Amino acid sequence: MDSFTDDAEFITCDSPVNIALIKYWGKRDEKLILPLNSSISVTLSQDELRARTTVAVSRNFKEDKMWLNGREQSMKNARLQSVISNIKRLCRKRKSDNDQVNDKLQWKLHICSENNFPTAAGLASSAAGYACLVYALSKLYGVDGDLSKIARMGSGSACRSIYGGFVIWNKGEAEGGEDSKAEQIVSETHWPDLRVLILVVSDQTKHTGSTVGMQTSVETSQLLQQRLQGVPKQLEKIKCAIQNKDFHSFAEITMRDSNQLHAVCMDTYPPVSYLTDISHHIIQLVHAINQDNNSNMVAYSFDAGPNAFLFLQEKDVPTVIDILHYFYPSSDPNFIRGLQVPAKRDVHVDYTVFSDLKVIPRALKFIIHTQPGPGPTVKDSDCGLLTKDGFPLNLNNANGKI
Amino acid sequence: MDSFTDDAEFITCDSPVNIALIKYWGKRDEKLILPLNSSISVTLSQDELRARTTVAVSRNFKEDKMWLNGREQSMKNARLQSVISNIKRLCRKRKSDNDQVNDKLQWKLHICSENNFPTAAGLASSAAGYACLVYALSKLYGVDGDLSKIARMGSGSACRSIYGGFVIWNKGEAEGGEDSKAEQIVSETHWPDLRVLILVVSDQTKHTGSTVGMQTSVETSQLLQQRLQGVPKQLEKIKCAIQNKDFHSFAEITMRDSNQLHAVCMDTYPPVSYLTDISHHIIQLVHAINQDNNSNMVAYSFDAGPNAFLFLQEKDVPTVIDILHYFYPSSDPNFIRGLQVPAKRDVHVDYTVFSDLKVIPRALKFIIHTQPGPGPTVKDSDCGLLTKDGFPLNLNNANGKI
Repeated sequence: MDSFTDDAEFITCDSPVNIALIKYWGKRDEKLILPLNSSISVTLSQDELRARTTVAVSRNFKEDKMWLNGREQSMKNARLQSVISNIKRLCRKRKSDNDQVNDKLQWKLHICSENNFPTAAGLASSAAGYACLVYALSKLYGVDGDLSKIARMGSGSACRSIYGGFVIWNKGEAEGGEDSKAEQIVSETHWPDLRVLILVVSDQTKHTGSTVGMQTSVETSQLLQQRLQGVPKQLEKIKCAIQNKDFHSFAEITMRDSNQLHAVCMDTYPPVSYLTDISHHIIQLVHAINQDNNSNMVAYSFDAGPNAFLFLQEKDVPTVIDILHYFYPSSDPNFIRGLQVPAKRDVHVDYTVFSDLKVIPRALKFIIHTQPGPGPTVKDSDCGLLTKDGFPLNLNNANGKI
Repeated sequence: MDSFTDDAEFITCDSPVNIALIKYWGKRDEKLILPLNSSISVTLSQDELRARTTVAVSRNFKEDKMWLNGREQSMKNARLQSVISNIKRLCRKRKSDNDQVNDKLQWKLHICSENNFPTAAGLASSAAGYACLVYALSKLYGVDGDLSKIARMGSGSACRSIYGGFVIWNKGEAEGGEDSKAEQIVSETHWPDLRVLILVVSDQTKHTGSTVGMQTSVETSQLLQQRLQGVPKQLEKIKCAIQNKDFHSFAEITMRDSNQLHAVCMDTYPPVSYLTDISHHIIQLVHAINQDNNSNMVAYSFDAGPNAFLFLQEKDVPTVIDILHYFYPSSDPNFIRGLQVPAKRDVHVDYTVFSDLKVIPRALKFIIHTQPGPGPTVKDSDCGLLTKDGFPLNLNNANGKI
């Protein structure tokens, strides 16, 4: 606990981003955020991508307030309210005899949250953000136990960011969602040489949000049913590939599932399209690399946007980075960010096998080089985002308003 | 019959392009070209798009020869051989007592075929081409009866170009394909105000051919099965919409089926992608127009390439052309080709409803304005593509070879 007086209490936590390998697409309950299928994800290192949230309660705060990336947000958001009231309910249930805690539950709440990656990168941050909020509130109110169900009510995939490593979100069967929660399959240390390259494409076009996209798919896609029937088998197969660190199978299952998600989006009416020409170029390049290698060296996965998440093994990072530099030349000295790229071995890459593919300068804004990582953590008070009076240290006035 | 001596006989025919509304995707027999599902198409007017084929037999010809768009082709193509031998077999069966015919069947064959639209437009021409060849050969050898089964063996969708208007290709059940043939639903005069705009996109990127694409889908797509189960219902629905000239329903069924085809392509492994950013922009524009209109004014359909086939009613042509001019500005004075565009009524198009969409100069090469049309026809001898000696009038030496 960072500080505690009679007047105020602060907690700051960090939380990771996760990338689904078997995607979540479609809800059976919009309000409780209960999914139509179970999903599996990998949690990414917080060194490169994380949400940070400071929560504070004080008898001096006048009203609940929230700031996200330096801008004040409405507290009237139904999902935000659902998360806060569920954490408080859990707290009351467990500590009903503690007056100090009861006081704290009455005090107004200030929330301040920031991501360490630019919003313009088009990387979904709601999962990391809600996981962080839930984790921070749980520390503030002294609640432990399963937080993934509460994070789920903020943003479905947030439940998976509560754990590190490889995580499954079991869809559950109960009407009230009691069994729709995440659990860790293996920790982030299980597959130490797995690496992730996030290819942030330059043209971040506007697109349908995933909430609306999946809702329209559930209402209109004929093919979604077939996908749902096939998912359990894919979950078993990828769990097995993860356990065995079988990269070739892991890659194929991951790519097929990403493709199927975007197929369902195309079968939606009106169709939803997240992939651009650059995304398709990356897909073709990955298949060309794998074909040339006679085995899968790289896998792609795309969420509800054009950026590619590439999975590969540490030994192949120099080769793949070299190929990406060739096809997507950039003059940005900071083009590759994150983990150090190992020295390039003296390997010969024969680009003639990719002769069908064009070189596209400036196709990518930048590349983030990262790896699997642990779940949320409590941070020292010097990482806090609020002043001792409970207001943001950093405000974003870019548009003239907070 | 254009000419007949003891020495040579010539026939010239024209044949139309057809656009599938319920798409053919996947074969149950690769050799006989038997489809996994029935399909429905509309045959387009030959004023704008047609294949023309001259066939000739002569006792003086040394060997079978074929030219396509001015270039000599190998006669060893299995599909070409299949079409020729099937026509000859039909001829033998029906005219076994006719010596003159028997002679002709022994003589060598010269075939010359041309399209009246540029190959660079990326418009599939094999359907029109094979329908034309089969039709011309049937006239040459005096065969009548159902030609669609023979055309099918050249190129599956060619069977639908044997008829005008709206055409169904019944997939059939027989192992040998006897019942896998096309029939007309209604003629080209049934829906006189239906119009077609073909949006030829500028960037004709290389893509997987439809033969290979559909084969890979059959082998790898989980979702294809679900599509196949749903097709019979869509066939009934669109037949009904065509009968009733119910444009709104016709448009929705057409768009949904096109989307589903491209969804199956995306679910194929490795994925097959025919649509580009421009194709997706057209899709979004069509939905924006329809939403603004509170009813479907335009429908799109995409085959195995990025070009859009738009369907609309004659009364809406000026408005839609106006919108297309706005979003895809071109300086080409010949940008709109084909049928005359009716004078624009004094209607106000409020482009602000399309504010999410960018204007993309030079996105389209040109637009062809056409309408449904009749089936193949025999042409006068002055349309012939071969000299009296049986060699092409026009040779394409662009690449230094014939």
